[in-house]
Amino acid sequence: MPKISKKGAAMPESPIRKLVPFADGAKSKGVKVHHLNIGQPDIKTPEVAMEAIRNFSEKVVAYSHSAGILSYREKLVGYYKSVNIDVTPDEMIVGTGASEAILFALQSCMDEGDEIIIPEPFYANYNGFATNAGINVVPISSSIESGFALPPIADFENAITDKTKAIMLCNPNNPTGYLYSREELEIVRDLVKKHDLFLISDEVYREFTYDGYEHFSVMQLDGLDEHTILIDSVSKRYSACGFRIGVMISHNKEVMATAMKFAQARLSPPTFGQVAAEAAIDTPKEYFVEVLEEYKNRRDVVVNRINKMDGAFCPNPKGAFYVVARLPIDDSDKFCQWLLEDYNYNNETVMLAPASGFYSTLGFGKDEVRISYVLNVNDLNASMDVLEHAIKDYPGRTS
Amino acid sequence: MPKISKKGAAMPESPIRKLVPFADGAKSKGVKVHHLNIGQPDIKTPEVAMEAIRNFSEKVVAYSHSAGILSYREKLVGYYKSVNIDVTPDEMIVGTGASEAILFALQSCMDEGDEIIIPEPFYANYNGFATNAGINVVPISSSIESGFALPPIADFENAITDKTKAIMLCNPNNPTGYLYSREELEIVRDLVKKHDLFLISDEVYREFTYDGYEHFSVMQLDGLDEHTILIDSVSKRYSACGFRIGVMISHNKEVMATAMKFAQARLSPPTFGQVAAEAAIDTPKEYFVEVLEEYKNRRDVVVNRINKMDGAFCPNPKGAFYVVARLPIDDSDKFCQWLLEDYNYNNETVMLAPASGFYSTLGFGKDEVRISYVLNVNDLNASMDVLEHAIKDYPGRTS
Repeated sequence: MPKISKKGAAMPESPIRKLVPFADGAKSKGVKVHHLNIGQPDIKTPEVAMEAIRNFSEKVVAYSHSAGILSYREKLVGYYKSVNIDVTPDEMIVGTGASEAILFALQSCMDEGDEIIIPEPFYANYNGFATNAGINVVPISSSIESGFALPPIADFENAITDKTKAIMLCNPNNPTGYLYSREELEIVRDLVKKHDLFLISDEVYREFTYDGYEHFSVMQLDGLDEHTILIDSVSKRYSACGFRIGVMISHNKEVMATAMKFAQARLSPPTFGQVAAEAAIDTPKEYFVEVLEEYKNRRDVVVNRINKMDGAFCPNPKGAFYVVARLPIDDSDKFCQWLLEDYNYNNETVMLAPASGFYSTLGFGKDEVRISYVLNVNDLNASMDVLEHAIKDYPGRTS
Repeated sequence: MPKISKKGAAMPESPIRKLVPFADGAKSKGVKVHHLNIGQPDIKTPEVAMEAIRNFSEKVVAYSHSAGILSYREKLVGYYKSVNIDVTPDEMIVGTGASEAILFALQSCMDEGDEIIIPEPFYANYNGFATNAGINVVPISSSIESGFALPPIADFENAITDKTKAIMLCNPNNPTGYLYSREELEIVRDLVKKHDLFLISDEVYREFTYDGYEHFSVMQLDGLDEHTILIDSVSKRYSACGFRIGVMISHNKEVMATAMKFAQARLSPPTFGQVAAEAAIDTPKEYFVEVLEEYKNRRDVVVNRINKMDGAFCPNPKGAFYVVARLPIDDSDKFCQWLLEDYNYNNETVMLAPASGFYSTLGFGKDEVRISYVLNVNDLNASMDVLEHAIKDYPGRTS
């Protein structure tokens, strides 16, 4: 029997997926499982996008342009203008989700053995993309005490080697919800220029900011046109994860020409998703007002409830729809499994994501979990009831 | 300014794309360009699939399962049964086109520096996928005189090194249209077993066979369950290239578990495309009867017309919708560019694909072109009128 690849063997498994059998087990015992483990919003996809799909009238569903349908890219110019980002259709390659856009960016800028610096905790799938591209992630730890703010720039400086090709940020951050400030990004800019690095910024949660804070994009930084690569997606903005439509954007012509070769090799992004995403740009403003209000209320429930729990701590992030909370537990992997396998409160339990999977440094995040607040306030309160009792009942409780 | 990657610099450009500016130039001069250069069929996508899209009624367009929507995979079991292939839903991972399925297969089986043997000429994008995965393509030349039949197995045997991990076939073949026989595949099977290799078979043109010939799949080979990986797509079958739905299939559990990690890292294939592809399985048989009749007529036009041209030769392939023809020309790259840049006949010209781009061996295919017969018979005849005169008028004519 022929052997699989070393790369395939090294590919990490999702920190959440391994809990799925335990969640299925809980459900089979009649326990209601509240899913706080995933970034799949429950919000309706905008009607204007669904309408475009129902009205699809082409007779042949053909390949689109490898960089994406031109009318979609042209319309995206207007969307980005509305968030103070100036780009042209030629500076965009539509990807099959941000996932593909990230792979295009990494492969265009980095070779086997090159290093990318990413503040941790970070979106766990970055590990998969890095393994896939054969590159090494160098984590810089951010701390829950500071609310997961940008780590000291000296930590970045110390981590730079002759293999370092890029710094990657996710802003607002998954899993922490942290919203980087303009000032923080300007500090990163100076470092990036000093060492002539790429700055890859995953901004798929751009719209999700709270308490009056506004998102500032790396594309708005002065003097960084040749260095910045923006990663974006419609998945979260329009609750349209299934469209599989993202985009890679850069003013750097050589980077875009290189990424285009990867894009051409896979022919084109999905046609239906692009049609729906193009229509979604006309989503009325009220949609976002309502959605943001809803998410803010959800965040407040989670943050307030956790901070009242004995021995627990949760920062109050300004963006995305995640928090990373510290709990009085010995091991978040064991705790999350225990919640599904051995625990219920009033016949309900919660599925959380162990934060360990979002850290690259071994042993970090053992007393932290990521909570996605993608459920309505009632379900969130019920989930917090479970959690409040669970951390008292958990055999591995530490305080 | 930071540098792009060596891998990105090495990524090949499509042999067709570089001609696009010349085609645009011809059009801007008012010359009608017949596109025989691409595999985008003009056939209508089945109504049953379009209906499913128009009736899409989910309120949230969510991520699907990373391996693809279960109901789709279950229905695919029935489709494959109808073509004498026995598989289970667990043995399939739905990909974003065959493109992604190929990448999953290569990455799961092969590491940087490993070798894959592919008969040439072969689908040019295989080069891109190989560069992307860091692996080396070892070509075995097939010849136009034999109609591009399987090269002598001794040629494969001689090419096998300790780096060889797989043999890849495309059946029916793009670009040659050649349909491998059961006997040829059994010869390959014995070699694959002897050297414990993977056999990756791209069968996206399965339905397109002519003159009473039937397709035989590597999945029907006895004793090769751990070695074979089937690559498939709905793009050509249902004229649905824009769905971006393909599939990777294998009985080898370790291969599938490994590919699943790559699939999970990118979350899921496109939801709309899967819904349409699932419905497309119910396409009535008459659709294919009509389509095949149409393609057979087209092939006959192309083959008959070219073989009547002085100094030209075209085999009569039994599958797909391509032929590779030999023309009395010095250099197919120059000829194809000349057709667009400098030539017209009655204010019409043709865009062809230089066959050189489908060979890995430098200098091969210089007097060959690939012709996709994806136009109606009238346009094909007009195209053959152009070609007939062009090869007489071409300054680089060789006979």
